[in-house]
Amino acid sequence: MQIDVSNTKVLDIYHMLVGLVTPRPIAWVSTLSPSGHVNLAPFSFYNLFGANPPVVIFSPVLRRDGSKKDSLRNVEATGEFVVNGAVARLSEQINLTSRELPYGQSEFDLAKLEQAASTKVRPPRVADAPFALECRLRQIVPVGDGPLSANLVIGEVVWVHVADELLNQDGLPDPRRVATVARLGGDDWCHTSDLFSLTRPR
Amino acid sequence: MQIDVSNTKVLDIYHMLVGLVTPRPIAWVSTLSPSGHVNLAPFSFYNLFGANPPVVIFSPVLRRDGSKKDSLRNVEATGEFVVNGAVARLSEQINLTSRELPYGQSEFDLAKLEQAASTKVRPPRVADAPFALECRLRQIVPVGDGPLSANLVIGEVVWVHVADELLNQDGLPDPRRVATVARLGGDDWCHTSDLFSLTRPR
Repeated sequence: MQIDVSNTKVLDIYHMLVGLVTPRPIAWVSTLSPSGHVNLAPFSFYNLFGANPPVVIFSPVLRRDGSKKDSLRNVEATGEFVVNGAVARLSEQINLTSRELPYGQSEFDLAKLEQAASTKVRPPRVADAPFALECRLRQIVPVGDGPLSANLVIGEVVWVHVADELLNQDGLPDPRRVATVARLGGDDWCHTSDLFSLTRPR
Repeated sequence: MQIDVSNTKVLDIYHMLVGLVTPRPIAWVSTLSPSGHVNLAPFSFYNLFGANPPVVIFSPVLRRDGSKKDSLRNVEATGEFVVNGAVARLSEQINLTSRELPYGQSEFDLAKLEQAASTKVRPPRVADAPFALECRLRQIVPVGDGPLSANLVIGEVVWVHVADELLNQDGLPDPRRVATVARLGGDDWCHTSDLFSLTRPR
């Protein structure tokens, strides 16, 4: 099958690409509105992009009606966010927080999650998440416009929380203990349980 | 464990974050040098970020000596690249192409891979990859500088090749047939074989 993007509907190319660009890690993002209401939502348009400084990007695409999601409005207004660890035992709650609540209502309450204070930024963390990345906004880069267009929220990681039980004896994350989940197309998710190792060539 | 990024060495924060921001999908990127030499290399700082237009980003970080990788130099010079499907049966070859060859030597030859012509861009595809995204550069955004700093190569997908056998009866990718692999920390990789489904709340 050949797809000429210029002749294809946005929704069709969306459904095709979310099934091919896989598995996508999940940023479970907490933010604060200017008036102090907390928001929590998952984004699979997300990854790490560099380490000097450490840079993560997530993209809250414009809604199908062209409006901005609460997470994007909050980061624009406050310049801060936290990426909470999206791990297997919290999958149901991560999914629940993808529900669109009226602006100002908290997904923490909806998913019965406790908040914990962050160290360097004001948005709280998910207390039960075994790791969290506190981030300060560097830049927002919109790419395109209209429904499902990208908004690159480029953040610098300034503080990392990680539960000691995720670390191996070298102090690095053990993937079987971290146990993140990821998104594929449609309603499909995957575990990071089926592992293998390859030595990098020199 | 608490990590104050401002007091942590770049390599230490790198090793921590590649173990936490997981699983990372792999862009297996083919490019051409201005003189026509083909390059192929995998990048796990990669994802889809929007659909209107469809946007992918990969980040060839600066090398530990501060120099630019060949893929970055080629995209800067030519404005085009192809993301080839990084699937399980090609894992060994994907890993092999992460080797740094002298500029101008082809990783296609090293990994005994055949080239196939692309439709809209000049860099060839990996013939044996079951899908490929042909991309035109929109913008390169450096974030930071020095070793392991990010270079966001923001590309627009203009043409998609996908083997019919990857698609289900609705014409969408079936994750068990797509069978992408992903990167975790260190030498760890994972399969997308351990799947589950969650219905999105309304």
